[in-house]
Amino acid sequence: MRSSRHGHLPAISAAPAEWELQRLGRRLPRSLRHARDLTTARRIVATAEQIFAEQGLAGARMDEIARVAKVNKALLYYYFRSKEELHRFVLEMLLSQLRLYVWSQRKAPLPAGRRLAAMIDNFFEFILRHPNYPRLVQREMMSRGPNMEWIVSEYYRPLHARLVALIEEGVASGEFRRVDARNAAVTVVSSMVFYFAAAPVLKQILGHDPLQPKELARRRQAIQDLLDHGMLQPKAGTP
Amino acid sequence: MRSSRHGHLPAISAAPAEWELQRLGRRLPRSLRHARDLTTARRIVATAEQIFAEQGLAGARMDEIARVAKVNKALLYYYFRSKEELHRFVLEMLLSQLRLYVWSQRKAPLPAGRRLAAMIDNFFEFILRHPNYPRLVQREMMSRGPNMEWIVSEYYRPLHARLVALIEEGVASGEFRRVDARNAAVTVVSSMVFYFAAAPVLKQILGHDPLQPKELARRRQAIQDLLDHGMLQPKAGTP
Repeated sequence: MRSSRHGHLPAISAAPAEWELQRLGRRLPRSLRHARDLTTARRIVATAEQIFAEQGLAGARMDEIARVAKVNKALLYYYFRSKEELHRFVLEMLLSQLRLYVWSQRKAPLPAGRRLAAMIDNFFEFILRHPNYPRLVQREMMSRGPNMEWIVSEYYRPLHARLVALIEEGVASGEFRRVDARNAAVTVVSSMVFYFAAAPVLKQILGHDPLQPKELARRRQAIQDLLDHGMLQPKAGTP
Repeated sequence: MRSSRHGHLPAISAAPAEWELQRLGRRLPRSLRHARDLTTARRIVATAEQIFAEQGLAGARMDEIARVAKVNKALLYYYFRSKEELHRFVLEMLLSQLRLYVWSQRKAPLPAGRRLAAMIDNFFEFILRHPNYPRLVQREMMSRGPNMEWIVSEYYRPLHARLVALIEEGVASGEFRRVDARNAAVTVVSSMVFYFAAAPVLKQILGHDPLQPKELARRRQAIQDLLDHGMLQPKAGTP
């Protein structure tokens, strides 16, 4: 997916381990903090993620989650005291994974353009591994419920700030043109998020599955091509 | 909003009259086809648009629509036989307006880059006049209901095809670089649609209202700047 003007990029992303519990800190349910075997809890969360994505918080039923995850309801409620707590945990897991993926980069001081390319690669990687993510977050946005407040303050605002800072750094060093960093950040995010969130509709419009590997590689390439020409200084990145 | 590499653009868009009934043809409820005075029907549709956007089809109640629109229920059901029919009419009105706006351009054979710029201006104009549009359509996408089928086949697929054709024309004439037209079209749309659809969340992230005129002008300018550099041939559009 990486034949950009930068040439071949090193594999910068190190796929972060799933469920980095210690990073979730206080948001980890007490029942899971000292658990030795998380197999069952993982199965519950994976099931819940799927069912919440399909039916939303209001539509999902704990009975069904227990049945599909093949656990009894007592254990389900022991781990997660309520449907709301389970739902929030599902969102926290996804968002903390997103944060790990998007910014898991080598410490080496790469130029801004390459770090931006790696960030985009990592986002594609994240969303391919977590296909329920767009729908779950869209549901929160649509419902305008209380969750968006912590999602924004703990995840989206810091992620946006880091992306803006990265673009500003590229502008300051002369690697990028003098773009409007805040708007460029929104455009970078929209070119990815919209594609995945609208995938079912794009499938109907285009007549093929936009999430199949060939199409994803093409999308990734098209985004990079536009950014290479739209953001990099005309001569800075020429091989 | 138009200080692009193209310099000052002529006012290409002619704001289409609201409710171009004849263009809706068969999709117009029979009760409205020969109506002389549409004042009440317009008030019903405007009210319904707002309530459907806020509460969705399932949540909205005809009682409330009648009360807020200040009509009695008998008249409401005379015009629109059911909540579903009223909901569909609201969507059809918005989408047919969208189509009129986006492609209402002078017949003059302007270069592709200027027609693309005008299309973007017209989309901004449309969405400012119809702020309920993003939420209503997002609801349809999320519910994956039967409406998306006709929305795609009658509106989105033809609009996408015209945008792709416009970009391909620009590539063929040498005005644009050899971009992936299909993906470029998706990126152009996402850079606008995502911004408006995610406006409530962007407001929380950015700490200011992304829909205030100054921010909209900045957004419009940033999109054009990225496209001018990302899509136009390096020298083609220099003033």
